[in-house]
Amino acid sequence: MTHSIKITRRNLLGATAGLIAAAGLKPSTASAQQAAAPAASTAKPIPAYVSWKHADSMIVHTPTTIETKRSAIGSSIITPSDRLFIRNNLPAPSAADIGDVNAWKINVEGVGKPQTLSLSDLKQIGYETMATVLQCSGNGRGLFPGKPSGTRWQTGAAGCVMWAGVPVREVIKALGGVSAGMVYMTGTGGEKLPEGIDPLAVVVERSVPLSAMQDAMLSWEMNGEPMPLAHGGPLRLIVPGYSGVNNIKYIKRLAFTKEQTQAAIQKTGYRMSPVGQKGDPSQPAVWTMDAKSWVTSPSPDSGPVKAGLVQITGVAMGGLEDVAKVDVSLDGGKTWQVARLVGPDLGKYAWRQFVLAATLKAGQYDVACRVTTKSGVAQVVVSTENAAGYLNSGWQSHAVKINVA
Amino acid sequence: MTHSIKITRRNLLGATAGLIAAAGLKPSTASAQQAAAPAASTAKPIPAYVSWKHADSMIVHTPTTIETKRSAIGSSIITPSDRLFIRNNLPAPSAADIGDVNAWKINVEGVGKPQTLSLSDLKQIGYETMATVLQCSGNGRGLFPGKPSGTRWQTGAAGCVMWAGVPVREVIKALGGVSAGMVYMTGTGGEKLPEGIDPLAVVVERSVPLSAMQDAMLSWEMNGEPMPLAHGGPLRLIVPGYSGVNNIKYIKRLAFTKEQTQAAIQKTGYRMSPVGQKGDPSQPAVWTMDAKSWVTSPSPDSGPVKAGLVQITGVAMGGLEDVAKVDVSLDGGKTWQVARLVGPDLGKYAWRQFVLAATLKAGQYDVACRVTTKSGVAQVVVSTENAAGYLNSGWQSHAVKINVA
Repeated sequence: MTHSIKITRRNLLGATAGLIAAAGLKPSTASAQQAAAPAASTAKPIPAYVSWKHADSMIVHTPTTIETKRSAIGSSIITPSDRLFIRNNLPAPSAADIGDVNAWKINVEGVGKPQTLSLSDLKQIGYETMATVLQCSGNGRGLFPGKPSGTRWQTGAAGCVMWAGVPVREVIKALGGVSAGMVYMTGTGGEKLPEGIDPLAVVVERSVPLSAMQDAMLSWEMNGEPMPLAHGGPLRLIVPGYSGVNNIKYIKRLAFTKEQTQAAIQKTGYRMSPVGQKGDPSQPAVWTMDAKSWVTSPSPDSGPVKAGLVQITGVAMGGLEDVAKVDVSLDGGKTWQVARLVGPDLGKYAWRQFVLAATLKAGQYDVACRVTTKSGVAQVVVSTENAAGYLNSGWQSHAVKINVA
Repeated sequence: MTHSIKITRRNLLGATAGLIAAAGLKPSTASAQQAAAPAASTAKPIPAYVSWKHADSMIVHTPTTIETKRSAIGSSIITPSDRLFIRNNLPAPSAADIGDVNAWKINVEGVGKPQTLSLSDLKQIGYETMATVLQCSGNGRGLFPGKPSGTRWQTGAAGCVMWAGVPVREVIKALGGVSAGMVYMTGTGGEKLPEGIDPLAVVVERSVPLSAMQDAMLSWEMNGEPMPLAHGGPLRLIVPGYSGVNNIKYIKRLAFTKEQTQAAIQKTGYRMSPVGQKGDPSQPAVWTMDAKSWVTSPSPDSGPVKAGLVQITGVAMGGLEDVAKVDVSLDGGKTWQVARLVGPDLGKYAWRQFVLAATLKAGQYDVACRVTTKSGVAQVVVSTENAAGYLNSGWQSHAVKINVA
């Protein structure tokens, strides 16, 4: 989050105490942790509203920011729901808030025939399944050297998820197409907003370029089960290739608009602001994700590594295009070897797993990886640090030191 | 299971009472249910050893035979672990029985350099991920007209699962290759056997043709988490394209052999015996699975269907080869329409999802589907009924009647 949003959220903590309590969070803990921007810790308990998360696989930063340990991401491409990270800008609604999920309503605007549709209606319109990398905009923030403010995510505010739902383009087609002159697709989250505060200061409403509509989905199912509330159920907008915040949870309005929303989370929040500067609309919005990869095993949070043959594994994403190649280095980037891509290809918005089988003698290794996309774009060496520490994709900061004994 | 095995198991119930109790099953319930071969019911509770299964998605036949409801299979290709069926020939070991999973041992025999390997050793040798349909040999038994003995599975003793582990061929290569003259790959399960009974009568040991080795895997991870004990952890043999019983749980011995094992589960069990006959080695073994598909939604166990556009969805597998096409019929097979395949292709051993969008008026529809594989093999109309009701793949018996209002 940007500095300005952060101040807003701190101010909000009193007002949202009721909401936070309703969501099963401890308000005192939440406020203390957000003020302190603490380092990762496994000591904090999993909060009640996501009690079904696999505690041993997670790092709880705050009750609304929970990441997957580097070594817990697994080797099955899809991240199990109980190991997927949590990052909610506002507390998730409760089941009582939602009621009958099939009666959930969304207003579609900026189309030929604007309409209010229920989830049942959407289920009649179309059916698709796709895998995407869901990644918090701030994933890797904790690996920037300058300690930007915000949750100090390592690698685990990311997962590869299978979504089912209806393609946005099919909904729009059924409603007479996008109205002339529209430039953005704007989604509004259905979180309960605290009273007495300008809604624009707090609402989760994001605009993305209209072109993102082509592959976007209104999704009601995640990894084979009805979308959990903590992840945006009953209905979430999935914008493949775009960072987490653009994938609007509990979506209640989908509008095609000429301008970007005036909500703070868009106007000043989630901007690529130079270090020391506040966010403003002249700065690039945090939208698409870059090519990025990281080693998952061995890693500092997995067990000791025995000398001999070692399977060095990891995940690699291409952003908006397919992964072509992953290289692995054992010497911090001086020399590279081509890794093998592993398992089925779930499409350009998913990640690939890779492995390099290396025979390692006892010693310390500086293990790095870098992905190259189909069109030849290589993962950057270092991402430019920005005020809020967004979109860190540099391979250097994601390298791990491995001790082999 | 075949008749002869069934008798053996019934005789065993007294002897295995301790084992069953240790696994969290109620022995009285287990014995009563197995004797009665009851119809499916949602009323029975999920047993303690799989308390993490999603109760609303499952049909508990007995404590060791639990299937997924037809409509609960989801639209995300991979079946979530908490919705995957359970069918255990013997009670699963407890975590205390297993101890340190990485110390689990497997003996590999019938190779150049026979060896005992730990799970840690295997993790060093290789790394692969693959999706397969895991399907109980008796899935669909309850749809045979003749009521063969055994659990009356409908469609839900099947799921599509992502496995990670080491390819068997890589392990064998590391051990000097398969010895000359071997014809079968024989896996032995690590279940605790009841005392005082000929082990061959009860051990879960299966032989499959040597050719199955090429794509087989020794797997320690299922759907992104360490293999659950209820599903064969710490280590399971995955034989893609072969029915469930051939995918040996808690595998402790992998042997390349000249003959099939003399274990009852192979010799007389899991044979395609003519109705009224006992199993014997002259009958075909229950090995590979056939091309098969079924509708998952709408289905009798999902909600009412509203007239208008309806998304008719299902799953389709090709057995040993890719799915090429799925046809859907709304009139019990008189006329057919080509469905659309949905979502990423996870490889020839996985299933595909399909959808047909149909505009339906009020009335009753007899909805059927049939898959055709890449080489042109079509799903059979009717599978030949056999004594134990194995491998029912006929599209006619898998059709559903749908009421549209």
